[in-house]
Amino acid sequence: MRSALILAGGRGERFWPWSRPGHPKQLLPLANGKILLSATLERLQGVVPPETTWILTGADLAPRVRALVGDKARVVEEPVGRNTAPAVGYAALLSQAAGAEDGMAVLAADHLIPDLAVFQKDLAAALALAESGDRLVTFGIPPTRPETGYGYLERGAPLGPGRAFAVAAFREKPDLATAERYVAGGNHFWNSGMFCWRPRVVLAALDRHRPALAQGVRSLAKAAKAFVAGHPAVSGDALEEIFPGLESVSIDYAVMEKATNAAMIEAAFEWDDLGSWTAWARRQARDPRGNAASGRAVTIDSDDCVVLGGGARPVVVLGGKGLIVIEHEGGTLVCPIERADEVRKAVAELEERGWLAGDEPR
Amino acid sequence: MRSALILAGGRGERFWPWSRPGHPKQLLPLANGKILLSATLERLQGVVPPETTWILTGADLAPRVRALVGDKARVVEEPVGRNTAPAVGYAALLSQAAGAEDGMAVLAADHLIPDLAVFQKDLAAALALAESGDRLVTFGIPPTRPETGYGYLERGAPLGPGRAFAVAAFREKPDLATAERYVAGGNHFWNSGMFCWRPRVVLAALDRHRPALAQGVRSLAKAAKAFVAGHPAVSGDALEEIFPGLESVSIDYAVMEKATNAAMIEAAFEWDDLGSWTAWARRQARDPRGNAASGRAVTIDSDDCVVLGGGARPVVVLGGKGLIVIEHEGGTLVCPIERADEVRKAVAELEERGWLAGDEPR
Repeated sequence: MRSALILAGGRGERFWPWSRPGHPKQLLPLANGKILLSATLERLQGVVPPETTWILTGADLAPRVRALVGDKARVVEEPVGRNTAPAVGYAALLSQAAGAEDGMAVLAADHLIPDLAVFQKDLAAALALAESGDRLVTFGIPPTRPETGYGYLERGAPLGPGRAFAVAAFREKPDLATAERYVAGGNHFWNSGMFCWRPRVVLAALDRHRPALAQGVRSLAKAAKAFVAGHPAVSGDALEEIFPGLESVSIDYAVMEKATNAAMIEAAFEWDDLGSWTAWARRQARDPRGNAASGRAVTIDSDDCVVLGGGARPVVVLGGKGLIVIEHEGGTLVCPIERADEVRKAVAELEERGWLAGDEPR
Repeated sequence: MRSALILAGGRGERFWPWSRPGHPKQLLPLANGKILLSATLERLQGVVPPETTWILTGADLAPRVRALVGDKARVVEEPVGRNTAPAVGYAALLSQAAGAEDGMAVLAADHLIPDLAVFQKDLAAALALAESGDRLVTFGIPPTRPETGYGYLERGAPLGPGRAFAVAAFREKPDLATAERYVAGGNHFWNSGMFCWRPRVVLAALDRHRPALAQGVRSLAKAAKAFVAGHPAVSGDALEEIFPGLESVSIDYAVMEKATNAAMIEAAFEWDDLGSWTAWARRQARDPRGNAASGRAVTIDSDDCVVLGGGARPVVVLGGKGLIVIEHEGGTLVCPIERADEVRKAVAELEERGWLAGDEPR
């Protein structure tokens, strides 16, 4: 049986005013109006059964996540965020406790993948690759621009037919010149942060490359069994005791970069991690003057502006050039599009002034 | 006894989103937070008694104007707007009906005059000049920039000591080169659209220069008497019958430009007709980077931006240059400051889409 982990613990401050405390990115309707987490769940439909689909999220978000996903997945509360390696380890234990020893897909809850069918084909290939050779499989996205905000995978030897390859090396976020070289060369791919592996294979890799963390994770085996058996309170107590003591480290850093059995599927699907409003704006359909207006938004004598109205109040951009304007009950952001990835500065400033709207319903 | 007319009939669409149907400029708190009409009334305190202070406004606005001014003035409803000449004529009849044959001050309800004491000194001089020689007195504002949006007064011969002069000529809104010549020459002044005269003097000028209109106006004498005697319904009926048939023309065009007894006080007070957000922005105190933020507004890494938050929702301008951002429950405007005087384009567009918020209370 297959399983899946959806990592849904992020806070996503970079989508202020949409993202605010209690309204993280994965719960926002940024996928053409669809909530990112819901779109992520759809990607597993027909591939992984709901009873072995684990959504890890913070305790504060868990009630809303549960209401959103219903019986399409099982929601697991992390008492504290400890980056991805402890989460992956615990999810592998959950899968084993449920008897799901085949491929486990690890997906981020807040990425954008417009074409579901193309993705599912690649997902099937990745799961098959993970199951056939005990490999740690990742997805390499053909780069479409010299992005310096992503890590890159260097493609190694082909692993049979199809688009399966060994990973020759993991490359940290490059400088612009290096990124340009990567894009021109054709042998480097964006590291999407999505994975497929058997539970026992990733646990073994943790044992080998991060033994102390692996030991801590494995002490959660009883908790995982209790959760699967329907005793979330028992597992919750164990998590609260043990999880905070685990090393906070990413699965990339703890395992993938050191592994000798890392493989990649060269992705056919389009992918965007939607890191900011800048990335979101890049994906909006524009009119002939380069403007995109949605909601009650109007552009007049403007060029290359993206304007998003949030409700009944109209928003007008008159004579704007290259601006993004997000109007929302949480606040209004006005900014050159290319600088919208600095919006955390705004969040910090608003927090200091006590003006950051809290947990009211959207 | 002296009297006054405050012209408060304007719609003021150029302050969207603050100005909207039912929320014209004169009722907005644009005078450092004070409502413009209230600030205008203050200018008459101690100079003109409330019982001969007439505020002319539209029937739709009259209830709110009445609530605002209380017993500080008497509110007269114009059944339709007919520009300033018919309004001035009717107000002169009201003053005569009330036995107020001394100077009548005519003020716009929506101008900004920051220094009350300096204005009142000039107002006293203008009233005295109007009363001493049966003159039509206006205020000439020393121009501080080559404004092409105003008419100009050409200063004539001095009329005794002080800053009283004849008006040599009225000059229409000039082109930029002409306006620059006016400013450099020192002999031209902005026509503020405020006046002082005796009621009988302005009525005689109407008789002479616009006899048909004067005849129509004078047929309202009975209505004026009924209003002053406390029968506004009687006067209202007469106004509704006669006013729509009067010529719609400005007092400048109908009388002032042709008069031989026009005079001016060279104003010592600062004056702005606040024609748009552009004009309003010009008056806001800026920080060292040229930004002005009021309400829940923040500028980050921005220059020369004016940001006005309208309520609980915070507004952030990040990396902006020369923008004005007005956030308000009526809508949000984002625009280069110097283009904010084109906001009527936005109002027209919103009206067409049915997105122009109406008469809800602010």
